[in-house]
Amino acid sequence: MNRRDFNRRVIAAMAVMATPRAVPASQPLRVNGQRVNGWLDTLSTFGRNSLGGVSRPAYGDADLEARDFVLRLLRDAGMETSIDAAGNLVGRMPGSEAGLLPIGTGSHIDSVPEGGRYDGTVGTMGAIEVAMTLRDAGRTLRHPLELIVFQNEENGKVGSKALRGEDPASYMDFVTNSGLTVRDGITRIGGDPARIEEVVRAEASMAAFVELHIEQGAVLESAGIDVGVVEGIVGIRRWNVEVQGFANHAGTTPMDRRQDALLAAARLVDAVNRTVRERPGRHVGTVGSLRAEPGVANVIAGRAQLTIELRDLAMGVIQPLIEEIEEQARNIALETGTSFEFRPVYRTEPATCSEMIRGLIDAQAKELGFTTLSLPSGAGHDAQEMALLGPIGMIFVPSRGGISHSADEYTEPAHIEAGANVLLHTLLALDARLDA
Amino acid sequence: MNRRDFNRRVIAAMAVMATPRAVPASQPLRVNGQRVNGWLDTLSTFGRNSLGGVSRPAYGDADLEARDFVLRLLRDAGMETSIDAAGNLVGRMPGSEAGLLPIGTGSHIDSVPEGGRYDGTVGTMGAIEVAMTLRDAGRTLRHPLELIVFQNEENGKVGSKALRGEDPASYMDFVTNSGLTVRDGITRIGGDPARIEEVVRAEASMAAFVELHIEQGAVLESAGIDVGVVEGIVGIRRWNVEVQGFANHAGTTPMDRRQDALLAAARLVDAVNRTVRERPGRHVGTVGSLRAEPGVANVIAGRAQLTIELRDLAMGVIQPLIEEIEEQARNIALETGTSFEFRPVYRTEPATCSEMIRGLIDAQAKELGFTTLSLPSGAGHDAQEMALLGPIGMIFVPSRGGISHSADEYTEPAHIEAGANVLLHTLLALDARLDA
Repeated sequence: MNRRDFNRRVIAAMAVMATPRAVPASQPLRVNGQRVNGWLDTLSTFGRNSLGGVSRPAYGDADLEARDFVLRLLRDAGMETSIDAAGNLVGRMPGSEAGLLPIGTGSHIDSVPEGGRYDGTVGTMGAIEVAMTLRDAGRTLRHPLELIVFQNEENGKVGSKALRGEDPASYMDFVTNSGLTVRDGITRIGGDPARIEEVVRAEASMAAFVELHIEQGAVLESAGIDVGVVEGIVGIRRWNVEVQGFANHAGTTPMDRRQDALLAAARLVDAVNRTVRERPGRHVGTVGSLRAEPGVANVIAGRAQLTIELRDLAMGVIQPLIEEIEEQARNIALETGTSFEFRPVYRTEPATCSEMIRGLIDAQAKELGFTTLSLPSGAGHDAQEMALLGPIGMIFVPSRGGISHSADEYTEPAHIEAGANVLLHTLLALDARLDA
Repeated sequence: MNRRDFNRRVIAAMAVMATPRAVPASQPLRVNGQRVNGWLDTLSTFGRNSLGGVSRPAYGDADLEARDFVLRLLRDAGMETSIDAAGNLVGRMPGSEAGLLPIGTGSHIDSVPEGGRYDGTVGTMGAIEVAMTLRDAGRTLRHPLELIVFQNEENGKVGSKALRGEDPASYMDFVTNSGLTVRDGITRIGGDPARIEEVVRAEASMAAFVELHIEQGAVLESAGIDVGVVEGIVGIRRWNVEVQGFANHAGTTPMDRRQDALLAAARLVDAVNRTVRERPGRHVGTVGSLRAEPGVANVIAGRAQLTIELRDLAMGVIQPLIEEIEEQARNIALETGTSFEFRPVYRTEPATCSEMIRGLIDAQAKELGFTTLSLPSGAGHDAQEMALLGPIGMIFVPSRGGISHSADEYTEPAHIEAGANVLLHTLLALDARLDA
C-alpha cells in the first residue's frame, strides 16, 4: 500500500475516535463499541487477502503498516509509547500511586499466513479501547497501565517469550512465515536483536496481566454464553512417530505377507482418536500430519511418519494417554509386521490463570449483565508467557462455528464490545484491589 | 563408462559364450546355466548403483550401453537383428517351414530408478540363452523365432504397447524416469517416433508368445516350488479418493466437534485392508499414498487424498470390492462429519494366459524334474500387451523374499537355469504342436 492509501484509511479510522461520547461522571463507564469495531475493520485492510481474510505474518509489509496504525492509536490514547529491543510495541499510562507494579494487558496483531480478522486483534484493539475509554473519562488508575502489542505471536510467541526470558538462541535463527529469520524480523520492526536480553522482566514484576481474545473454539457459541472465563492455558506435548515396514510391489505381494507401514500408521491414527475420546476429560489429541514413503499407488509403503499432539490443562493427564497409545502401537506393530518409534519433539507447560482474577472477570461480566462459562484455553497465548511475571487472566469471546486461523473467523461486534467492557472493569477491579 | 571399459566387460562375457559345450544329438537339449548367469552378471554392471542394485531407466546412458551389449549377444546367437521404429531390439531366426507365424519370446532390460538385477533381465537373457542353445545344437525351429527386447517396460510398457497398437498420443510426451520424453527417448535409442505406427502388429499375427520372468512375489519361494505357471496377468483399477473435512485448531476444537479428514482417511485405509482380506480370493488391495492438508501437527486436517488400487485376474471380482469399500466410506463419513469422493484414474484389463501354453509349460517343467505351481501375476508384463497378437504364456522363477524393484532382488542361478530350460522346451513343444 502507498502512503496516501495508508493515510486515507487511518484518517477514516481516526474520525470515529475524534468524536468520543461525552460520559457524565454519574454514568457507568462503558467502552465505545462502534469505535473498537471500526478499528478492527481498518486493521483488517492491512494484509487483506483474496479469501476475505488476512495474511499478515510478523515482519512482513502488512505487519509493518498495521504496527504503524496501532502506534498512532496508542499515542492518541494518551500513552507513552516505545518499541522495546524485542520489537514489542509498548504503551504506558502512569499510575496515580507511587511504587505500584504495572497492570498489563494486550495481545498481538500478526496473523498466520492465511488467517482471520479477529485472532489477536480483538485483544489488542480491546485493550486500546479500554485505554481510550479511561482517557475519555479522565480516569487514571492507581497502578501504571501497560499495554503490550506482542510481536510475532503466531510463529513462536517471540515477543512474549523474550519478556519472559526465553533463551534467544532458541528462536533467533528460526525462519518465520515472512521468510525472514526472527533476528532480521526484529531489526525490521525497530527492535535490536543484540540487546534483546535487556527486555527480560523479573519474576513477579507485574501486578497482573489480563488478555482478551476470541475463543477459537465453539464452546461459548454452542452454549449461547457471552463471556468465557479462562481457567488456564493447556500444556502441549508432541511426538513424531516413525513407522518402519517394508516397501514392496503392490501387485505381487499377497495380503498376508505385507509389512505395510501406511496401514499401521492409519490404525494408529484411529487408535489416538479412540483413546483420547474414551477417557473422560477435556483433553484433545490430534494427528495432523501423515506421510508415507515412497507414497505411490502401486508400492506398499515401507515407511510412514506421523505427528501426535496431546493437550490438557494438567500434564499429568497426558502421560497415561500417551502410554496407552504406545501400548496400542505395540499391538498394531505385531498385527502388521511393522515397528513404531515415538520421538518427543515439543513440550510446553500449562499456565494456570489466577483464581483471584478469574473470580473478578466472572463477577464483572455478570455485573455487566453477561452470562459466563469457565473453560480451558486449548490454544497458546502470549498471556501464558506472562504467567511468570505475575498473576494472569484471560477473557474469551465467542467465535462463530469455532472457526479460527481462517478467512471465516468471525466474532460479532456486540461480543467484541462486551469483551472490551469486561476487560475494562476487570482492570478497574484489579486496580482497586491490588496493593502491590 | 568409456568404450574401453565397455569392451573389456563384453569380451569377458563373450569368452563364456565362445566355448559352447559340445552337445551330442543323443543327449537331451539343455541351456548353459553358467553362460546365462554370466551374462546377467555383465548386464548388472551397466547402471550398477551404490546400493548394489541397478539404476537403468530406459533411454539413459546405462540403458544404451546395455542395449549395445544385448545386440551383440543377439548377433552372436546367429539372429538377424534390427531396432524397430519404436526402439525395440528384435532378433529373428528364420523357421524351416514356409508360411508359419513367428513364435515370440523376450522381456526387457530397463529398470526402475533404483531397481534390481533380475527384473526383465532374466527373461531377456534366458531367451537369448535359448537361441544360443539352439544355434549350438544346430537346431532350427519350424516357425520363425522372434526374440523381442521391449524398450521401457518399467515406465509405461512403451515398446510392447507400440506393437499392440496403443495410440502413441497417449505416451509420446510422457516424461520418463530418464528425464526424457518417450519421444526423445525413442529417438535416442535408434527408433523413429514419426514412424512408430509402422510397428503395429496385426491381431493373431504371432503363433505364440512366452515370457520368462522372476515372480516378484514370495509364493514360489514360500511353497518351495521351482517353476510358476502363470494363469494370467491381473487387471488393475485405481482410484484417487478425496476426503473433505474442515481444517480447525487442534487445541481449541473439542473432540466431538471435529471434521477430521485425516482420521476419516485413516479409517478408510483400514477398511480397504479389512475388506480385501475378508473376501476369499487372491485379489490384492493397497493404499500406497496418503496426504493430509494442511498437514501440520497443530491443525486438524481439512482435506486428505489417498489412492486405492485393487488387482485381480477377473475384473468382476474388483467391482463388488470397491462397492463394499465405498459403502464403508459412507459410514466413516457419517461418523466423522466428512465426505468422500472416489475418482477412477486407471484401469488395465487382465490378460489370460493360454490354457494350451500353460499345459505345455507345466508338462515340460515336470518332464525336466521341476515342481510347478499355477499362480496369477500380480505385476504387469510386456506379455500382456502381446495377448492380442496371439496366445501367451509366462514362466515364473522364485524371487528371494518376494523382494523386487530393489537392490535386494535375488533369484538363484539354478532357478534361472531352470527357467531358461523350461522356456527352451516350451518353445520346442509349441513349435512341434502349432501348425499356424
